[in-house]
Amino acid sequence: MQSFQPPRRILMGPGPSDVSPRVLAALARPTIGHLDPAFQDLMEEIKAGLSRLFNADGYACVPLPAPGTAGMEAAIMNLLEPGDRAVIAINGAFGGRMADMADRAGAEVIKVEFEWGQPVDPAKVEAALAGGPVKVLAFVHAETSTGAKSDAAALCALARKYGALSVVDCVTSLGGITVDAGAWDADVIYSGTQKCLSAPPGLSPICLSPRAQTAISGRTTKVRNWLLDFNLLMAYWGGEGGRTYHHTAPINALYGLHESLVALFEEGQQAVLVRHARSHEALAAGIEAAGLKFLVEPAHRLPQLNAVLVPEGVDEAAVRAYVLAKWDLELGAGLGPLKGKIWRIGLMGASSTAWHVRLCLTALCEALNAQGFKADGAAAVSAADGKLA
Amino acid sequence: MQSFQPPRRILMGPGPSDVSPRVLAALARPTIGHLDPAFQDLMEEIKAGLSRLFNADGYACVPLPAPGTAGMEAAIMNLLEPGDRAVIAINGAFGGRMADMADRAGAEVIKVEFEWGQPVDPAKVEAALAGGPVKVLAFVHAETSTGAKSDAAALCALARKYGALSVVDCVTSLGGITVDAGAWDADVIYSGTQKCLSAPPGLSPICLSPRAQTAISGRTTKVRNWLLDFNLLMAYWGGEGGRTYHHTAPINALYGLHESLVALFEEGQQAVLVRHARSHEALAAGIEAAGLKFLVEPAHRLPQLNAVLVPEGVDEAAVRAYVLAKWDLELGAGLGPLKGKIWRIGLMGASSTAWHVRLCLTALCEALNAQGFKADGAAAVSAADGKLA
Repeated sequence: MQSFQPPRRILMGPGPSDVSPRVLAALARPTIGHLDPAFQDLMEEIKAGLSRLFNADGYACVPLPAPGTAGMEAAIMNLLEPGDRAVIAINGAFGGRMADMADRAGAEVIKVEFEWGQPVDPAKVEAALAGGPVKVLAFVHAETSTGAKSDAAALCALARKYGALSVVDCVTSLGGITVDAGAWDADVIYSGTQKCLSAPPGLSPICLSPRAQTAISGRTTKVRNWLLDFNLLMAYWGGEGGRTYHHTAPINALYGLHESLVALFEEGQQAVLVRHARSHEALAAGIEAAGLKFLVEPAHRLPQLNAVLVPEGVDEAAVRAYVLAKWDLELGAGLGPLKGKIWRIGLMGASSTAWHVRLCLTALCEALNAQGFKADGAAAVSAADGKLA
Repeated sequence: MQSFQPPRRILMGPGPSDVSPRVLAALARPTIGHLDPAFQDLMEEIKAGLSRLFNADGYACVPLPAPGTAGMEAAIMNLLEPGDRAVIAINGAFGGRMADMADRAGAEVIKVEFEWGQPVDPAKVEAALAGGPVKVLAFVHAETSTGAKSDAAALCALARKYGALSVVDCVTSLGGITVDAGAWDADVIYSGTQKCLSAPPGLSPICLSPRAQTAISGRTTKVRNWLLDFNLLMAYWGGEGGRTYHHTAPINALYGLHESLVALFEEGQQAVLVRHARSHEALAAGIEAAGLKFLVEPAHRLPQLNAVLVPEGVDEAAVRAYVLAKWDLELGAGLGPLKGKIWRIGLMGASSTAWHVRLCLTALCEALNAQGFKADGAAAVSAADGKLA
């Protein structure tokens, strides 16, 4: 066994995205104790930074000590008790995962399903909500498996109208498109660090509204997960009257998240969103100039996650293998019913730059040409440049 | 919000322990994708390294993407289904936590309780096992809350005798005293990274025997946790026939764990244990020369976690605050019934050196003198040196 030296990679898949040198440097700062006064100050800064980023004033905001799936599991398992009814919108892999978790919570799950690549249709969701008392409405804002965006404001409003608590998966949206817990009046909203925040994977920021906190503290049964039980977590992260030991926080990973928040606020929240939008427009122009098409209609496309259809006769996996071998470039494959049918091209966080767009178009066209599909790389880059000028 | 620069600290509490510069440097290497071929090779090396470290040949060994508590929760929640009976030995905070988790799994919990600071008595455990069919016997090998070691070999043998699966918490023991899954014939055995492995907190290595894997794949109900469900995790970490996406692995944290394993095997597994034993003997000689006493009897003491009784009239918290302020030294407090009554002095991993012993004795005696308790620091260091020579 020898020390591991990772190869050079450019990360343009569905996550992780490229991590900036300043965040990598933060990870390597000396570990201190999780009960250290200096660490407790850091926790307060992270809580405040997350509240600002989610626009979740008055919410309880904490980073969970596990990848983004932990945010999903915490939301579902804390809100649902056996016998509760939950409406879950499914328009990709992650909605399906939510339904599986709600089933494990002992809830009655009402699935509202959509074709992969389509957004969640609020009218179909409303029909399900109107069918009887529902405790939770859960949906994915930005489906990582398809690149489709759903209307979080409309869906959260429906949850309020029918007296349900809303759970909003913002794993891929946070930092790439507008996420606004306050304006949406969302109840539980969570993300991951490895997408548009451009920190390494491993943490899941989550925010809970006062309504959600009341629902959790008023449960009649224990949350089935110990590590993700908010009644325990709040005493640990609460900060008032001394913290109750719960788990040992992942200190160095939190250094990384903190630094990524500092960098994001330095650039400016609005400027970051504009950068993501511009990168997407440039990539989209190049993709079309190369003769390729998107899975998702323009109105519902996520700028940070581009699902591009594999042309007839092209070997999807061979193209990814080519760009990895020749350009150190990681692109994503399709999942489930989209396996072999799309590439997923991420333009997330530090991977959302003109340089990444130009490199990706060049590499992708070269790989397509190697497969016998004619794609003019220079024309694709030129089309992208037209949007970047 | 500004970049965080941690203060200098010497970590001699119950964990995290000091992280060596080479492990910190590994954390900062560029992030690659969790499906990258190079990362999959790294996963295989980590699995093999953990198998070697736990002496768990033939076991499924993986690092869970969350702190040590996740190992406990995974063990309990995967093995127990509603209605199963579990015997849980409780001789400190962590046995109590296991019982809480088993209750959340829907199991009938038979608690076998001991005074804090005492080891688990196999005779009392056998009496509980003899009371009827039991699915699981769970206990803590090295109680982090008290510094007491229990006889894992004897307890695992009892589990086998009564047809129960054994769950062994080795969070604090792994890398500090002998941990031997194979010789004990243990079923599920887990640890954390932030104790004697001296990596940052955030991961929980776990190993499952073939018996445990069979029990889990034969469950009639779903595991209540999605993230920690081994039926899903095994398809992700399995490595044969392609990995099934489950979660995004905490890439950089795994770089750190890998490097800590490389360092440990370079030093030698036996040499590491000898170093821990020597450090403890030196500290114990110094503690006694300073007029202080241990909570735990010599036969059951953990070398890596030293519970020292606070003398009459001394303010426990003031001593910790003093050594933190004057010496950048973090010591641990007591938990639960031991709060205010003990200090917990860790000699774990990179914090288990002659330098740490000498510094700790010097700082502690100085703080005691400031409290009016006469302790001769020079004599304490000299007594320690006698054991280190």
